[in-house]
Amino acid sequence: MAKIGIILSGCGVYDGSEIHEAVITLLALDRAGAEVVMMAPNMEQAVVNHLTGEPVEGAIRNVLEESARIARGNISDIAAVNAADLDALFIPGGFGAAKNLCDFAFKGSDCDVHPDVARLIQDIVAAKKPLAAVCIAPALIAKILGDDKLNPQVTIGTDAETAGALSSMGATHLSCPVNEFIIDKENKIITSPAYMLAGSISEAAEGIEKTVDALMEMLD
Amino acid sequence: MAKIGIILSGCGVYDGSEIHEAVITLLALDRAGAEVVMMAPNMEQAVVNHLTGEPVEGAIRNVLEESARIARGNISDIAAVNAADLDALFIPGGFGAAKNLCDFAFKGSDCDVHPDVARLIQDIVAAKKPLAAVCIAPALIAKILGDDKLNPQVTIGTDAETAGALSSMGATHLSCPVNEFIIDKENKIITSPAYMLAGSISEAAEGIEKTVDALMEMLD
Repeated sequence: MAKIGIILSGCGVYDGSEIHEAVITLLALDRAGAEVVMMAPNMEQAVVNHLTGEPVEGAIRNVLEESARIARGNISDIAAVNAADLDALFIPGGFGAAKNLCDFAFKGSDCDVHPDVARLIQDIVAAKKPLAAVCIAPALIAKILGDDKLNPQVTIGTDAETAGALSSMGATHLSCPVNEFIIDKENKIITSPAYMLAGSISEAAEGIEKTVDALMEMLD
Repeated sequence: MAKIGIILSGCGVYDGSEIHEAVITLLALDRAGAEVVMMAPNMEQAVVNHLTGEPVEGAIRNVLEESARIARGNISDIAAVNAADLDALFIPGGFGAAKNLCDFAFKGSDCDVHPDVARLIQDIVAAKKPLAAVCIAPALIAKILGDDKLNPQVTIGTDAETAGALSSMGATHLSCPVNEFIIDKENKIITSPAYMLAGSISEAAEGIEKTVDALMEMLD
């Protein structure tokens, strides 16, 4: 049974993992016969009121504890997870990927990545194991592997400004419709736009389900 | 396009809506061509740390704001929603259904139901519009329609103690496997066990997807 790591970044599109993307990924992987290994960094995060879209001044939550809501408690501190424990890695989107796993949402191409997230992504790619990411999460990959001069080929859909930031971090950005995905064969990376472009949960699901299928095929 | 109301109760299995159940419901309804109308009560809730399963002493969140995480902000206060606005109603499970929408988790068959939740369920049933509920949410239906002497036929799976509580509230409990559902034709109610029995997200999804299919068929 293939073990697929999933890096969560909280619970909610504006300050954590995009919930629909995470659950659709979990369901598609379970239906494909994979075992999932959920993880998140044990760190503080800022809070956004999802009813108003406004920051909640002074509020702090813990990324690992909030991610545990999506994981129904079945989750590990990413500091304790190694690439050797996994056959592949999947990173759902949501602003948590760009605010908690790294600070791309605030600093753009000058962002810093959480050290354990960077370590795991680097080790998975070095071990030639598949890496998938959707929505804004490919920004993480662009930063880490761009710095490593691996020229990752990724998509975040079609947004020119975000695509430009990814290019300036050393990635090659390829435009991609919501119901498709991009494969970087050299680095074994699969990316899909999901809610960067999706107008409905079905649209997000189509691209994510195809991404999971491509990931599982890459393991064969 | 059929308008299906979804009553959320927070965000996370131990103190809110079960996230997998809610997202699987949203996806299945969207794929069936329905429009969803998400709602939750605007009220305070207690908080459970989903990493440890322990209550967070003194912590308070708002059910509507937390539910908005699942809804990506697209959600209404249930006080503003009427049965006339909807073609059917769906209630996912999670402890939020038994702690926030009512207090069945604390008081069992002596529980009280949030007045707007009770109003909407009564009005939907009176209008002969379909009502679906999964996991522990059928306890709400048992209490409300049991009090109204409508003898609802529902399932929460096979747990004898919970089933007994539903019976003592005036419902008829029927045992049901995780991948199936129960229909009360008289009251137009569809229920399925979901995570009351599911050992995996795929198992929960099978019953929920069948429940959504049955709901949509009932609308034809």
